[in-house]
Amino acid sequence: MSDPVLPSLETLNTPTLLLDETKLDRNVARLRERLAKLGPQLRPHMKTAKCLDVARRVMDGPAGPITVSTLKEAAMFADAGVRDILYAAGIAPQKLDLVTAIRRKGVDLSIVVDSVEAAASVARHARVTNDRLPVLIEIDSDGHRAGIRRAQAELLVEVGRTLQDGADLRGVMTHAGESYHCHGPAELAAMAEQERAEAVGCATVLREAGLPAPVVSVGSTPTAHSSESLSGITELRAGVFMFFDLFMTGVGVCTLDDIALSVLATVTGRNAERGWLIVDAGWMAMSADRGTRAQSVDQFHGVVCDINGVPYPDLVMLKANQEHGIIAARPGSEAVVPDLPIGARLRIMPNHACATAAQHDHYNVLQTGSQQIGAVWRRFNGW
Amino acid sequence: MSDPVLPSLETLNTPTLLLDETKLDRNVARLRERLAKLGPQLRPHMKTAKCLDVARRVMDGPAGPITVSTLKEAAMFADAGVRDILYAAGIAPQKLDLVTAIRRKGVDLSIVVDSVEAAASVARHARVTNDRLPVLIEIDSDGHRAGIRRAQAELLVEVGRTLQDGADLRGVMTHAGESYHCHGPAELAAMAEQERAEAVGCATVLREAGLPAPVVSVGSTPTAHSSESLSGITELRAGVFMFFDLFMTGVGVCTLDDIALSVLATVTGRNAERGWLIVDAGWMAMSADRGTRAQSVDQFHGVVCDINGVPYPDLVMLKANQEHGIIAARPGSEAVVPDLPIGARLRIMPNHACATAAQHDHYNVLQTGSQQIGAVWRRFNGW
Repeated sequence: MSDPVLPSLETLNTPTLLLDETKLDRNVARLRERLAKLGPQLRPHMKTAKCLDVARRVMDGPAGPITVSTLKEAAMFADAGVRDILYAAGIAPQKLDLVTAIRRKGVDLSIVVDSVEAAASVARHARVTNDRLPVLIEIDSDGHRAGIRRAQAELLVEVGRTLQDGADLRGVMTHAGESYHCHGPAELAAMAEQERAEAVGCATVLREAGLPAPVVSVGSTPTAHSSESLSGITELRAGVFMFFDLFMTGVGVCTLDDIALSVLATVTGRNAERGWLIVDAGWMAMSADRGTRAQSVDQFHGVVCDINGVPYPDLVMLKANQEHGIIAARPGSEAVVPDLPIGARLRIMPNHACATAAQHDHYNVLQTGSQQIGAVWRRFNGW
Repeated sequence: MSDPVLPSLETLNTPTLLLDETKLDRNVARLRERLAKLGPQLRPHMKTAKCLDVARRVMDGPAGPITVSTLKEAAMFADAGVRDILYAAGIAPQKLDLVTAIRRKGVDLSIVVDSVEAAASVARHARVTNDRLPVLIEIDSDGHRAGIRRAQAELLVEVGRTLQDGADLRGVMTHAGESYHCHGPAELAAMAEQERAEAVGCATVLREAGLPAPVVSVGSTPTAHSSESLSGITELRAGVFMFFDLFMTGVGVCTLDDIALSVLATVTGRNAERGWLIVDAGWMAMSADRGTRAQSVDQFHGVVCDINGVPYPDLVMLKANQEHGIIAARPGSEAVVPDLPIGARLRIMPNHACATAAQHDHYNVLQTGSQQIGAVWRRFNGW
């Protein structure tokens, strides 16, 4: 039963964020089915959703496990009862006191390092606080960003030994971020195997040096949906798979019909000469992320759908100012811009779910095909 | 006197937003001095700052006037005592009830239309609510986005007459958004004159048809700093001039030294092989806005400064993931990446002040050259 106090798509204040719960549930089930066959536990990355209601639909249980991108997320989810949290960005020494404060609430909060320098500061902090902080060593499996390469075996062991002097070396983690730039299933499967092999290889280096590595953690949405084996992997992290977006459609791991997130907008003007509609959603509502710009199909600032979420052929948000979006036919296409009156409503699918969601403080939740909001889920931002 | 409870740049949690009050005050004084010579009143656009403390430093007085980009801004500033507010984006009919609610608090809130269709719905609403809503007709002075062109004189008069049947036609407004793409002072001055002439010309069209046009409103930061005359203009709107940013530096209306906004970040990793530093500010802290990409000097995700805000030569945030920034020498330069330890702090100047500020909920305010935060000013987002 829908709550009669909640608005419909016709009465919501715009611009605002919509979350299709039917698609969310389907996207979560799809990854869970894969992992049930492949073995690893799912440690969903909450950096996209930043929302307890979403977390409850994705986690194994109320206590987690989850992955987070900020200590703000760690603190918020800890306060809501989550008890197993990996903070998956390299730790700044100034943040260790906050890590300790969250751990003292009974949370198994683990952190990440990729250097002797960081490991030494973490181990020192662990000794001073008398808390064997659990730590994963970040592995560079694809040259994407941070981490230690498998070829740097001596460094890897040195970091592990440095950690063991006070902290608790728990294993390794890697994120094959370069998978975002793969083309086609074969490249994606190869990248997923590379991510797996590098992580397992580094865990083996540690174990052969007599160090513990019970956890071998990998993850990115493209590789999560492309790996043929996850042998040796104990857990998988992914975030955007819950919502999907135009970038992931371009990567080839979902279709437009899987995208659970959209921005509801209202037509505020028309320019017949130029074939434009103006809407009240600009980059403030969509984010300035134009990730599809470099893909084979540029989706500009978003794919335009009718109020029910069905895409108009080749209709895109061509330009975005702060609070204005310009809706037009995709350049080079012969699409016809619908003749909509001022006040008509459209839904815009985003380039990047993480970025678009971050522009909003709540999700208006509805089922596929419904125009009635069934729930409002709060989300948070910040650090 | 600094508040001993407030942190310093060494103790702040990062990433976080810094606002240099010395530069803010200087930027505001600079535009005020220009306008004192040129004549029009300043109606500062609060879409960049979204902060009452900033507004108080920019407004003529506690009651305004100001410009806003959302009705959320209008409501927030109205609650704080501002009494003269222009909502400068085309009105969606569904928002008229909220406009009325704010006006009933005693606020002179005016709105904008650019079509007979919108004018008719506003006039109807004005009659039904028995409130002569003040309205400006938006003028298209440069083909940027919305508005009626001076050549469409009949349409302009028809919109004016439609409004007068219940609402209160107050005049015209335009925003020369294409000025963002001008090169050099001569082009900027020409665009400023075009903006002025089109607005004044349209006001003349209305007046010659016997319609009122007491207000002739123009504004964009590039034209505000480039106009040689504002004859016939009654008010000027601009927003980013308060903070400035790398995009405005590229346009040529400020220097790096004028940029009042930066993001404080902490070094979390180093990659000596690639010449990278990794910091804990990614696109979530900087925004995904890469406006300088299309300018003559691409500043990537931001210009990197030391903790005091002094730029390192040719050091930029080369890549940005959600919570990771990669600091490196500008490609093609021979800049040396400073050998900083993990835990060191840097300040990153943004491409676009409006977008970067929107990623944060407060400003840490300090004076040029000081490392001590003197105040925390709240800002708001949303609709």
